[in-house]
Amino acid sequence: MLLPQIKEPNDLKSLSVDELVSLSEEIRQFLIEKLSYTGGHLAPNLGVVELTVALHYCYNSPKDKMIYDVGHQSYVHKVLTGRMDRFDTLRKYKGMSGFVKRNESEHDVWEAGHSSTSLSAAMGMAYARDLKGEDNKVIAIIGDGALTGGMAFEALNHIGHEQKKMMVILNDNEMSIAPNVGAMHNYLSKIRSDRHYLKAKDEVEYLLNKIPAIGGRLAKSAGWLKDSFKYMMVPGVLFEELGFTYLGPVDGHDLPKLIETFKQADNVNGPVLVHAVTTKGKGYKPAEADSVKWHGISPYKIESGQVLKSVGNPMYTDIFGQTLIELAKQDDRIVAVTPAMPGGSGLIPFSKEFPDRMVDVGIAEQHAATMCASLAMEGLKPVFAVYSTFMQRAYDQIVHDICRHNANVMFAIDRAGFVGPDGETHQGVYDVAFMRHIPNIVIMMPKDENELRHMMKTALEYNDGPIAYRYPRLNVVGVPMDQELKTIPIGSWETLRQGEKYSIISAGPMIQVAEEAAEMLKRDGMQVSVINARFFKPLDHELLMELAQNDTKMIVLEEACEAGSLGSSILEFFSEKGMYEAKVHLMGIPDLFVEHGSVKEQREEVGLTAESVCEEMRKLKLQYAYDLPKTSLPS
Amino acid sequence: MLLPQIKEPNDLKSLSVDELVSLSEEIRQFLIEKLSYTGGHLAPNLGVVELTVALHYCYNSPKDKMIYDVGHQSYVHKVLTGRMDRFDTLRKYKGMSGFVKRNESEHDVWEAGHSSTSLSAAMGMAYARDLKGEDNKVIAIIGDGALTGGMAFEALNHIGHEQKKMMVILNDNEMSIAPNVGAMHNYLSKIRSDRHYLKAKDEVEYLLNKIPAIGGRLAKSAGWLKDSFKYMMVPGVLFEELGFTYLGPVDGHDLPKLIETFKQADNVNGPVLVHAVTTKGKGYKPAEADSVKWHGISPYKIESGQVLKSVGNPMYTDIFGQTLIELAKQDDRIVAVTPAMPGGSGLIPFSKEFPDRMVDVGIAEQHAATMCASLAMEGLKPVFAVYSTFMQRAYDQIVHDICRHNANVMFAIDRAGFVGPDGETHQGVYDVAFMRHIPNIVIMMPKDENELRHMMKTALEYNDGPIAYRYPRLNVVGVPMDQELKTIPIGSWETLRQGEKYSIISAGPMIQVAEEAAEMLKRDGMQVSVINARFFKPLDHELLMELAQNDTKMIVLEEACEAGSLGSSILEFFSEKGMYEAKVHLMGIPDLFVEHGSVKEQREEVGLTAESVCEEMRKLKLQYAYDLPKTSLPS
Repeated sequence: MLLPQIKEPNDLKSLSVDELVSLSEEIRQFLIEKLSYTGGHLAPNLGVVELTVALHYCYNSPKDKMIYDVGHQSYVHKVLTGRMDRFDTLRKYKGMSGFVKRNESEHDVWEAGHSSTSLSAAMGMAYARDLKGEDNKVIAIIGDGALTGGMAFEALNHIGHEQKKMMVILNDNEMSIAPNVGAMHNYLSKIRSDRHYLKAKDEVEYLLNKIPAIGGRLAKSAGWLKDSFKYMMVPGVLFEELGFTYLGPVDGHDLPKLIETFKQADNVNGPVLVHAVTTKGKGYKPAEADSVKWHGISPYKIESGQVLKSVGNPMYTDIFGQTLIELAKQDDRIVAVTPAMPGGSGLIPFSKEFPDRMVDVGIAEQHAATMCASLAMEGLKPVFAVYSTFMQRAYDQIVHDICRHNANVMFAIDRAGFVGPDGETHQGVYDVAFMRHIPNIVIMMPKDENELRHMMKTALEYNDGPIAYRYPRLNVVGVPMDQELKTIPIGSWETLRQGEKYSIISAGPMIQVAEEAAEMLKRDGMQVSVINARFFKPLDHELLMELAQNDTKMIVLEEACEAGSLGSSILEFFSEKGMYEAKVHLMGIPDLFVEHGSVKEQREEVGLTAESVCEEMRKLKLQYAYDLPKTSLPS
Repeated sequence: MLLPQIKEPNDLKSLSVDELVSLSEEIRQFLIEKLSYTGGHLAPNLGVVELTVALHYCYNSPKDKMIYDVGHQSYVHKVLTGRMDRFDTLRKYKGMSGFVKRNESEHDVWEAGHSSTSLSAAMGMAYARDLKGEDNKVIAIIGDGALTGGMAFEALNHIGHEQKKMMVILNDNEMSIAPNVGAMHNYLSKIRSDRHYLKAKDEVEYLLNKIPAIGGRLAKSAGWLKDSFKYMMVPGVLFEELGFTYLGPVDGHDLPKLIETFKQADNVNGPVLVHAVTTKGKGYKPAEADSVKWHGISPYKIESGQVLKSVGNPMYTDIFGQTLIELAKQDDRIVAVTPAMPGGSGLIPFSKEFPDRMVDVGIAEQHAATMCASLAMEGLKPVFAVYSTFMQRAYDQIVHDICRHNANVMFAIDRAGFVGPDGETHQGVYDVAFMRHIPNIVIMMPKDENELRHMMKTALEYNDGPIAYRYPRLNVVGVPMDQELKTIPIGSWETLRQGEKYSIISAGPMIQVAEEAAEMLKRDGMQVSVINARFFKPLDHELLMELAQNDTKMIVLEEACEAGSLGSSILEFFSEKGMYEAKVHLMGIPDLFVEHGSVKEQREEVGLTAESVCEEMRKLKLQYAYDLPKTSLPS
């Protein structure tokens, strides 16, 4: 066993290439074993074992900077940089992150979670290096899926222009998380299948040498032919045209070949793109056979590949997917648009039922949003199905193209609120704050799956502009389902429990926390109402005025950043109405990034629990019961 | 004169090509004449006269959709679609927009202002057309600068994959607003200069026909050579590889050639890219000679090309540019990063002084932001100089790469607040609302140019994470300038005028409006304080607590969307501190998009004037002086 001796990347340097091959196999088995207990991103990491070993063998981390795009393929890097013993805590609360994490290791130089940032990061590091007169290497490792993100192209365009020395490794596994789409994908496929043509190189050189002998007729075109020769010899002409030296395609599981290619790359004084072809899930049959399923996986049995899923209610995502089919059967204007997340967004059944009405644009949230605007202008009813966190990429397009045009786009915002083990890069806690100040948009959140279905119907029937429904990454509540879908009056809240002078205003899955708190307070003899603020915009003006006029003390409970979200908009409403003395206490997520763990742990960390609500409610009662001076209030 | 007869695009159809050429010249003179009074985007429009005439001659608007990227090059389109008589009101309040505007004409099918959206819009329209079984043409007109925006690439990637019939016209004038940078630009330059090589086509065909005769040695490679032939014949191989049929380059001022090329394009059953080479400012010597200056121009004298500029104080932009040079002389960590706006951001002098420390990334806000994060990690002090409205494109990168990493990035946010004639697509009114809920960031706004300089010093000395200063698109106040730059304590506000029980909290240029209001109220015998809330985040907790404890009634006056901006954060603060009875009235921009006009007119439209402040203040006084019941308040 070589693996136990590897405490840091330097320990690789003394190994022979044969030993590196053995080590790679050990790492593969280590990951298959460890992840069978914790779950995690198995397939992507099995695909980059040799690549990562070769990098750490050829380069000197952390002096040389290795930048992993997205970062879920950094497990091998973690193994090689002294974190083997932390794999039992992978993606657990206070445990090792599933992504690159600067506070875990000096070898982790760039964190991500969202895709397509690595090239920009690398460009900055190369630029800084040259300005400081240093000489380290800068290496970005990016997947073919991530390469379709617009910002990756912005970076390619800039890197090709500036000609800084750096290496981009295109980890081409022929998929992003879902099977890849896009012209770039088709292009890469062509290169891969063209590999055998390379053998013709000698023959063509022979031909070109013959040219002068043909008769001098081509003299004028000689320069041009020389240029064209490049196109013939180099499969990666697209990258060459953008200013990169293209090397490859190279088998990403062939260690000696990888090492040789890196040496070749080192001799280039400018940006190099190494095209490595890898197999997602390599070395573990079930993962090789279905790398989409095994991209991010729950614990499993190694022998059988059986995935150990907790039995429970379906996810909100599933209800969305099923209901969209129902609606689409009745209304042929519906088109679903996804940025590379057909599976994650529950749209696979829809895509089978309506292949012509399903648009997967690749990792391209900006394009997706703007395309939705024009689909809507042409009379269709596009549903932009997107995770809250990835929607951040389309903020400008939502403002400038969707809301400013007041286009009838429906947003299905999945994974709103805490997301659990993916952690701080993926939390869906900003969308309310970054959307509700945009004119024309309606924003909803259902308290349960039954209400989600009615909201989807409501959105479809609404024809006055953009409308969003957001739902959590959770199993549904399990409530009885109405057969008939109905529309909910825009801006109408509902009082779920009637209380006296005290009220919890909440929405989504926090409604259950509010109900729990109300139950606990009832046992203390305090009757508080629970209000389902199912519209974040517009608010229910009538109900709010009623509450304020009755001098109700309100707690607004929301699983969203407290700044700028629902509570904030309620405060603004009272201010606007001159109800300056309305008493509203906000309970949202404070001003910090919440790391990975379970949703429950994340809620506990920031005090979004029934106990905390009770505590705040008791404080409010105390304050007004005894009329304490404000200065003595708890801060 | 042909022009007066053109009331709608159909009127072109009966003209001969020679007449179209004459008409183009008339349009050119019309624009030169009209814009000499109103100002506007002269150079871009002179560059697309023939292109636009050819499009309206060959196609049937509005059935065929013409989508202008950005839209400031739509003047010729406006001339041809019945709006000649509105040019006197160009970019004026309630007048004709400088961009495409759906409520102006049925021929305006897609609005923009921000670049790079046209391809996504076109894709949506082509998709909708096919789904509905219609047969109209879809045509996007995009500049070479706009093509570098990431979302344009996302769209290219998707269009090339889907193979819908549509035409992309690449209007290649070798610049965006500033001289273009980037590998794509270099690539296009190469195509242009390679044009004469096309003559070699016959010769190469001759050669290839000879191949079998050489001796059969190449038989195996024949298929590959055939593929390679494409590379030799087609200058736009990059676009071809992405799935487009490339046509061009064609002289964009040669009407017959353009018409012929469009006919060729119509025969292609899939996406076509027509590469038209145009000259910005074509036909007006001063504009041809300096197309950067004449991109957007003030009124001018036609004969001399002399620009009639109002004499006044310098712009905030200029002070920023000068001060950055001063600071950079003392601190060599400073690097300036601009997304294609070196001129607009006042960075031309800086780029001359420090060419190695100036990074123009092209139209690429996302890449710029993320690159800043990694520059900061490497110990540099990057300044991301960006207009407020374009910063919207980098929201996700600000969250995910800058703030989550807590990187020491400085944001110089220009054109914060109303921007005047560019109108609703360019208003800088959302940045506070979309930034202040992000953890770790500090946000400032100076009341005058002297304070701007101190804030720049403050930002430079601050090493605890991202920090932003935002300033308006206005001339500076003209205050005396301190020689010594000092740091301002983070989160400290200043009381500019001491009053009694009433206070106006404001920032930036609104401070002058606040002072004016305070003066007016003073004449009425009401003493109100004016507070310079120069930090939007963090707030001045001490000062706010003091105000609330003294039962001060506050008006928060800000030139930003009311939802989620400064006023909102003050309300949240009082709620958090349990000061539920603090009286805070918000005066910001209501929930609507504000159209073009002067900044003064825009402020008047939404009530951000001294008169309105006085009115609200008097209402507040009335409410509390007579202790009116809340229900009788004006709503």
